[in-house]
Amino acid sequence: MATSWKHRYAKRMRGMSSSAIRELLKLTQQSDIISFAGGLPAPELFPVEEFRAATDRVLVKHGSEAMQYSTTEGYEPLREFIVLKMAQYNIQAAQENVLITSGSQQALDLIGKILINPGDMILTERPTYLGALQAWRAYEAEFVTVPIDGDGMQTEQLEEALCAGPKFMYILPNFQNPGGVTLSLERRQALINVTDRYGIPLIEDDPYGELRFEGEHLPPLVVLDAEKLNSRTPAGSAHGFYRGNVIYLSTFSKTLAPGLRLGWIVAPTEVVRECVKAKQGMDLHTSSFVQMVAYEVLKDGFLKDHVHRIRQVYRERRDIMLDAMARHFPPGVRWTRPHGGLFLWVTLPEIVDAGAVLERAVANKVAFVPGTAFYPDGSGHNTFRLNFSNAQPEQIKIGIKRLGEVLTAELEYEKELANNV
Amino acid sequence: MATSWKHRYAKRMRGMSSSAIRELLKLTQQSDIISFAGGLPAPELFPVEEFRAATDRVLVKHGSEAMQYSTTEGYEPLREFIVLKMAQYNIQAAQENVLITSGSQQALDLIGKILINPGDMILTERPTYLGALQAWRAYEAEFVTVPIDGDGMQTEQLEEALCAGPKFMYILPNFQNPGGVTLSLERRQALINVTDRYGIPLIEDDPYGELRFEGEHLPPLVVLDAEKLNSRTPAGSAHGFYRGNVIYLSTFSKTLAPGLRLGWIVAPTEVVRECVKAKQGMDLHTSSFVQMVAYEVLKDGFLKDHVHRIRQVYRERRDIMLDAMARHFPPGVRWTRPHGGLFLWVTLPEIVDAGAVLERAVANKVAFVPGTAFYPDGSGHNTFRLNFSNAQPEQIKIGIKRLGEVLTAELEYEKELANNV
Repeated sequence: MATSWKHRYAKRMRGMSSSAIRELLKLTQQSDIISFAGGLPAPELFPVEEFRAATDRVLVKHGSEAMQYSTTEGYEPLREFIVLKMAQYNIQAAQENVLITSGSQQALDLIGKILINPGDMILTERPTYLGALQAWRAYEAEFVTVPIDGDGMQTEQLEEALCAGPKFMYILPNFQNPGGVTLSLERRQALINVTDRYGIPLIEDDPYGELRFEGEHLPPLVVLDAEKLNSRTPAGSAHGFYRGNVIYLSTFSKTLAPGLRLGWIVAPTEVVRECVKAKQGMDLHTSSFVQMVAYEVLKDGFLKDHVHRIRQVYRERRDIMLDAMARHFPPGVRWTRPHGGLFLWVTLPEIVDAGAVLERAVANKVAFVPGTAFYPDGSGHNTFRLNFSNAQPEQIKIGIKRLGEVLTAELEYEKELANNV
Repeated sequence: MATSWKHRYAKRMRGMSSSAIRELLKLTQQSDIISFAGGLPAPELFPVEEFRAATDRVLVKHGSEAMQYSTTEGYEPLREFIVLKMAQYNIQAAQENVLITSGSQQALDLIGKILINPGDMILTERPTYLGALQAWRAYEAEFVTVPIDGDGMQTEQLEEALCAGPKFMYILPNFQNPGGVTLSLERRQALINVTDRYGIPLIEDDPYGELRFEGEHLPPLVVLDAEKLNSRTPAGSAHGFYRGNVIYLSTFSKTLAPGLRLGWIVAPTEVVRECVKAKQGMDLHTSSFVQMVAYEVLKDGFLKDHVHRIRQVYRERRDIMLDAMARHFPPGVRWTRPHGGLFLWVTLPEIVDAGAVLERAVANKVAFVPGTAFYPDGSGHNTFRLNFSNAQPEQIKIGIKRLGEVLTAELEYEKELANNV
């Protein structure tokens, strides 16, 4: 009888097919391939020495506490640090509005767990972050999408999409993954007006917001939402301190190190309370050791200069990539010009399939992620994502040259085909 | 409109009421209360110095790798270490059978995610581990239970319970939480016979198996299951290396430190593969930093002497607690005598309610966990769990004396009431 149950018992989990990102990360481990496929930060910028010193201090002073069970909500000094950090962006939160998560990915899973019933519709940008689709497909969510352009989600198409009755909206306003685009101030306002009118929750996922290379920081959606509410009914009571329709997510993965798995949720108290209950059943709490060491690194203002350095390096790499693309990519290929973050987005002529291009690209020792994985409906066949944070400048030049060769050959071939018809 | 959605949108999550364990942990933070409520290891045994040295070595030698994203399956050397560790208990697994989890709690959540559909029945011991109930209630599981006695689950009642058609069975065979009891060899055989006959998956949760103070180690269910299969059809192929009906869970929380959040699943390859897909959407991977530091501590045989020391200390505390209970608890109160682990289990006369006793106990500066939380059906009103690993010997003596005072007064009161009727 043994093992027969494994097939018989398999739970219906639509969309939990093997992850495109993970499969492609495997490619990147071949050392002779230049990969723009992953979403990896530049490892040479990780504050390794700071972590060595901080771990030592934590274990000498608070060793038992760092290794013991702790509360689900998270390490209090770290939550307080996040409260102050949020205040720098005018996000008015109290400690009770902050929950530490095991990376932002867990925040997405938590939201799925507390909000999604099978068949629920979720409104996202098109394309959108693959990890959110993975997390929510496990709860049997359906998706309705609104396309992006250079200014982010095309909010003029929002109300039409709302007819599908989405349970909540999911937006990456800054240097979106995968598009690299940023939601304009006008569209932020429009989005919040709709949110307010329909009373529909909005998940603001902001892993990259601090990594702006140029232009002015734009107000987070959570701030615009609070301002709108306060203009009508001033906040006063302790419980009204943080309220509204927006659940804000961020992470230390891009500013400290992703290997820590350390993110956070800022949300109204009752939402945090539901998330805490759900998280108890998921992993009890995020590693106390990791939380305390990260706090020790962060507490004396380390992040400011460090993030400044990351910005400089990533801006340089973006510029080198854009420059190489302009030099090597054939006419007919378009791409975004991100003002920050880790990614840019390439659109090929309609006739070209990015999956087929990837095969040839890998043969030419360069890799990227084809766009379809980021489209809930599986469209976007002629798009792909490039990461510019991980590879060294020289590698970027060589990799983009290789990719340009592949694209040029591909477009030539398609043109010949078209001429022969 | 704002915030109205929070109530309107709340997902129906039965049983996700505030955790009894967590609420009680809050009590234990009052410094003048002696708490036997938590499930905390003795913090003075945490290998803090070893972690200091190991972190230093990892960050000097592999700093970038420890801070970067890594694979969902887990750090390969740690998975290989677990393969060898499992082999010491005759569990024949390959690396592809091992998945690193963010504590054993995540393993429970993963199992819920890949196996449970709303309304599915799960067979557990009665009482059973609260964390499993929490994890699986979030997937809207129902429970059918089989009572335990001093030899663990009463397997003679198993077939009757199977009539409810459970999706899988969940057993803690060694020093069960909360009962403290161990499943006898005869019952292990009986359980595996049933598992084999019905082809029903069995989750073997073994966080405490290494912490045996006395008696012989009994074969894990996964080993008995494999022997039964091999006696019929010898294993040969690489894929048949680990097979069968049992998914085995364990953790470093009790042997190293719970603050790491580091556990593992050993399961047939196809089950591990499903878990990996699910874990991608849950937290991408368990902290690479934590995995690499733990491996560095473990790799040269540290665990053997360390676990020996933990056993000595916990055995001493168990003995002191049992001795104090015999001295201070009034007649009519019964308790288990665990051969290992962290917990023992107390049964009061039917007429007494452990919740009411807890209130008086806290007033007398001592705490425990009332039993009802461990009963899927909410029964067990006259039972409670005591933890003996966390408090110092002197505290155990004083705490049990205080608890004895409360119990004596309570039983006297109930006797008087009965006499007056």
